[in-house]
Amino acid sequence: MTDFQAVLNSIYQDAIQATDKGVVASYIPELAHVNKENFAIQLRTATGECYGVGDYNKLFSIQSISKVLALSKAMSLIGEDIWKRVDVEPSGHPFNQLALLEIENGIPRNPFINSGAIVIADILVSHLKNPKEDFLNYVRELAGDASINYNIDVALSEQSTGFKNFAAANLLKSFKNLNNPVDVVLDFYFYQCSIEMTCSQLSNTFYLFANNGKCLQNKLHITDRQVKRVNALMLTCGFYDEAGEFAFEVGLPGKSGVGGGIVALLPDHFVITTWSPGLNKKGNSKLGMQALEQFTTKTKQSIF
Amino acid sequence: MTDFQAVLNSIYQDAIQATDKGVVASYIPELAHVNKENFAIQLRTATGECYGVGDYNKLFSIQSISKVLALSKAMSLIGEDIWKRVDVEPSGHPFNQLALLEIENGIPRNPFINSGAIVIADILVSHLKNPKEDFLNYVRELAGDASINYNIDVALSEQSTGFKNFAAANLLKSFKNLNNPVDVVLDFYFYQCSIEMTCSQLSNTFYLFANNGKCLQNKLHITDRQVKRVNALMLTCGFYDEAGEFAFEVGLPGKSGVGGGIVALLPDHFVITTWSPGLNKKGNSKLGMQALEQFTTKTKQSIF
Amino acid sequence: MTDFQAVLNSIYQDAIQATDKGVVASYIPELAHVNKENFAIQLRTATGECYGVGDYNKLFSIQSISKVLALSKAMSLIGEDIWKRVDVEPSGHPFNQLALLEIENGIPRNPFINSGAIVIADILVSHLKNPKEDFLNYVRELAGDASINYNIDVALSEQSTGFKNFAAANLLKSFKNLNNPVDVVLDFYFYQCSIEMTCSQLSNTFYLFANNGKCLQNKLHITDRQVKRVNALMLTCGFYDEAGEFAFEVGLPGKSGVGGGIVALLPDHFVITTWSPGLNKKGNSKLGMQALEQFTTKTKQSIF
Amino acid sequence: MTDFQAVLNSIYQDAIQATDKGVVASYIPELAHVNKENFAIQLRTATGECYGVGDYNKLFSIQSISKVLALSKAMSLIGEDIWKRVDVEPSGHPFNQLALLEIENGIPRNPFINSGAIVIADILVSHLKNPKEDFLNYVRELAGDASINYNIDVALSEQSTGFKNFAAANLLKSFKNLNNPVDVVLDFYFYQCSIEMTCSQLSNTFYLFANNGKCLQNKLHITDRQVKRVNALMLTCGFYDEAGEFAFEVGLPGKSGVGGGIVALLPDHFVITTWSPGLNKKGNSKLGMQALEQFTTKTKQSIF
Repeated sequence: MTDFQAVLNSIYQDAIQATDKGVVASYIPELAHVNKENFAIQLRTATGECYGVGDYNKLFSIQSISKVLALSKAMSLIGEDIWKRVDVEPSGHPFNQLALLEIENGIPRNPFINSGAIVIADILVSHLKNPKEDFLNYVRELAGDASINYNIDVALSEQSTGFKNFAAANLLKSFKNLNNPVDVVLDFYFYQCSIEMTCSQLSNTFYLFANNGKCLQNKLHITDRQVKRVNALMLTCGFYDEAGEFAFEVGLPGKSGVGGGIVALLPDHFVITTWSPGLNKKGNSKLGMQALEQFTTKTKQSIF
Repeated sequence: MTDFQAVLNSIYQDAIQATDKGVVASYIPELAHVNKENFAIQLRTATGECYGVGDYNKLFSIQSISKVLALSKAMSLIGEDIWKRVDVEPSGHPFNQLALLEIENGIPRNPFINSGAIVIADILVSHLKNPKEDFLNYVRELAGDASINYNIDVALSEQSTGFKNFAAANLLKSFKNLNNPVDVVLDFYFYQCSIEMTCSQLSNTFYLFANNGKCLQNKLHITDRQVKRVNALMLTCGFYDEAGEFAFEVGLPGKSGVGGGIVALLPDHFVITTWSPGLNKKGNSKLGMQALEQFTTKTKQSIF
Repeated sequence: MTDFQAVLNSIYQDAIQATDKGVVASYIPELAHVNKENFAIQLRTATGECYGVGDYNKLFSIQSISKVLALSKAMSLIGEDIWKRVDVEPSGHPFNQLALLEIENGIPRNPFINSGAIVIADILVSHLKNPKEDFLNYVRELAGDASINYNIDVALSEQSTGFKNFAAANLLKSFKNLNNPVDVVLDFYFYQCSIEMTCSQLSNTFYLFANNGKCLQNKLHITDRQVKRVNALMLTCGFYDEAGEFAFEVGLPGKSGVGGGIVALLPDHFVITTWSPGLNKKGNSKLGMQALEQFTTKTKQSIF
Repeated sequence: MTDFQAVLNSIYQDAIQATDKGVVASYIPELAHVNKENFAIQLRTATGECYGVGDYNKLFSIQSISKVLALSKAMSLIGEDIWKRVDVEPSGHPFNQLALLEIENGIPRNPFINSGAIVIADILVSHLKNPKEDFLNYVRELAGDASINYNIDVALSEQSTGFKNFAAANLLKSFKNLNNPVDVVLDFYFYQCSIEMTCSQLSNTFYLFANNGKCLQNKLHITDRQVKRVNALMLTCGFYDEAGEFAFEVGLPGKSGVGGGIVALLPDHFVITTWSPGLNKKGNSKLGMQALEQFTTKTKQSIF
């Protein structure tokens, strides 16, 4: 049997000695301050064991990772109706997302590019009574942890600088693919992205996607088939313009965020979360990508 | 010598009998109510004669025609510095302006596409003490007519539905090509577009472009060279995706608006304004285009 | 244990009763004649059992499926150097592949879109002594079947009508991403696509991708890591603009061709091939997609 | 009255002293050898006077300037039917012409971008008995000069390196907007572009566009209205991505070629040709553009 802790330790040793640790995201002022020496991995297996190394109990901004949670909540609310408003295909080149949105008449390519995530946010705003509160409670329930919270400074920081998101939301609105006012939807969206978690909390929260839709508390949140959809989307669209590379190098469904977090999973086997704030050129955590690649290579645990 | 009145009369007879009068713009609710039976032509020659036919003393929304006036005001304020932020080339296909803006890093193709006009509005907001008031006074001075005004209902109507403009402005902001807040710039921009004039007033207002920069009151507003720039831009970019066709069919610098107005001019000779609210597929006044084509054909007065 | 034959039989019964069997590809005249009532599935397990239903011993044109074989041959010839000339990311929207190629300076998004496959063909032309003969022998060796052959009529039919491929190849050449003359590369490429196989032969040929690089005769052709790369590429890019949907509905690496064939596989478990000539709107076999979806649903054999 | 010779002399003095003379086109090997010290201007007035300075009797490759002549010949052959296959609007950004062609379903934006000129070449190939011979005779007749000829080395040089043109032609063919084989059309097209003329010969040849369709020998080749179309197209589309700038700086209909030639004209007044092989970043003759700008500024002869 694999000695997971030994594997994590060995990856950790490599990581802390890396000379190139990537570049911390600076487009959101609040994120620019994070120390790029932080590094953590946390693993939770389907049989309940947990392994960790580094700063796995330190909070970081989950950012785009929240899109997966918003999607699963939307699935539980309106099911297949989501796909009338968002597609499920990889987006190709991300540098001109608005171009793509224009050409495709306001239907985002998938729920993990920003325009798609904004449509999902619109769905949550429409169907949740108290959107921010209800969504946070949903995440807390998945994680089994009431201490999880928004970082309001990060949310406001993004609100005052996220012009591309305002552009995308207004374009969606012009195509009538947003039912609520732009400001209301983006206010929710920026809060959603500002959630902070530790690696341990993230592994716990994503456990349902490795467990056929049941969270740690054994409550069924989404169906088997919906889990398959989420995992297929993470595999094909979870890493911006590096999805193909991740599918190959790591071979697991996963999702990254500009805060430097990555969560990945092997259905029925495990959830693994890494955190390293420095990003590579494509916007994914540089050392996180490498750590996951080493993990699946060393443990031979991947979908291929 | 040409009997201008007879020419206008004959064009008028053709126009009112046309069976296909185009489609009134409906994207701004306030504009959708205009009766498409309205039709007018007004001509002012360099020697001071005026000729008119139809409803040439009836007010209509000048919309995009205002972009030419905003440009000339910006020219008088900051001169050549404008061209660091806006290009002077035709835009090609307008159906994906945001795509173009993305590819060209936030530099709009010219000051008459919406994104370019929004940058000009930003310049005016920065350099005018009381932007709305000062700009209106500028237009009134050009026209020699203090009765000209904004239509606040039209401005608010566009403010609450102009999502594509909000998308463009936010995209410009993300490229740091907007110095003022998006809302402030667009508020000014929607007011600017909401100005109402009659054909007579428009011919008067545009007189400076046929008169080497001097308005009707003989005051010099912009230089000879700036007038040449404005006229070259009107010729190559004044008619959305129909600039080439207009250059050929009419052969005059001109500018159209979705309110159904068109103003065109032959330097040193005349200014002519038409109004017919029904638009063709490219968004220009259907009968207005035809009227101007007939006018230059019958009078042999064009730049070619 | 699953009764695979019973599963195939049940899928077959559904398929032959389907009222909408899609549309046979007509852009290659030679392919337009194929009877769309043909339907077949063939399954080969890692333990050596074979199951089949319908016309699984009837030849059809494998078309784009050949791109996977060309890629694996190129991998065995020049290894990682391939990726200097072709990327590994999904292509997003396929309707304007040339646009994408222009924007990305002649580097095709992946080896399974036509432009990418043409670069791979160029590599084979450069590194094989007798390209057509050697490639055919490679395919025959993988299949363990010397009867496999090109269909020269199909190759010539495509040669005289494949203008988009000539456009793509010339564009690649203009970016210096083609070392051999356009005509020579495309001649090889059209031959490559014209190979005919039965479902059984295709399952045999693709066996190496489910068997860590070893073909049926137990010869190692490509490394473990190269197999992982091929499978990741099939999963993310194997189905034109329907890769995301296939990843979800079927959950297996696979590749389709406009001849109506699809081959898919679960590493270490099985290879499955379907054939039904009618295509859906995205260019993939309509009933083939449905058959594979039913298969993985009924057998619960997928990567998720 | 303007002393034209003095104006030309003064422009010449400035030009030969310029330190930055642009960069000679190198993509066609045969053109790369031309000495960039060459400089010439030649002016022919409607009243028959001719003025020249510099190397105005030296031959150079007219390249894209030939597109105007091909268009006028096509107009005389099939008239308005041309516009079913080519549009008349500026092309916007030229760096991705194939993208534009794909999006607009194989209808080139105008007859002066390469794809449009290839469609015109296709028309000539279809309607001329001996295309190369007949077209050359047409040009000779316009010029009143039987010595004008193709430069076969230049034509062959372009044939062996013009991959983007082959890409465009094949794309046109895939959209069924080419009736003859790609190779046949491009063979003609490369010959057409390889014509060599002196500045004097070019002014003579273009005389019909300043003379309502009648050439120097007073023969009517195209109608008044067709001349207006050609001139409008030159004004809006004659200078690649610098059409707007030329319309402003020079204010004349004109056409440039990568051989460094520019011909421009004021209807009923004059034709002027410049030659200076060094190009600016947009692909137009650097000193030629400046010379024409000075000419219209000094003589106040422009359309505005």
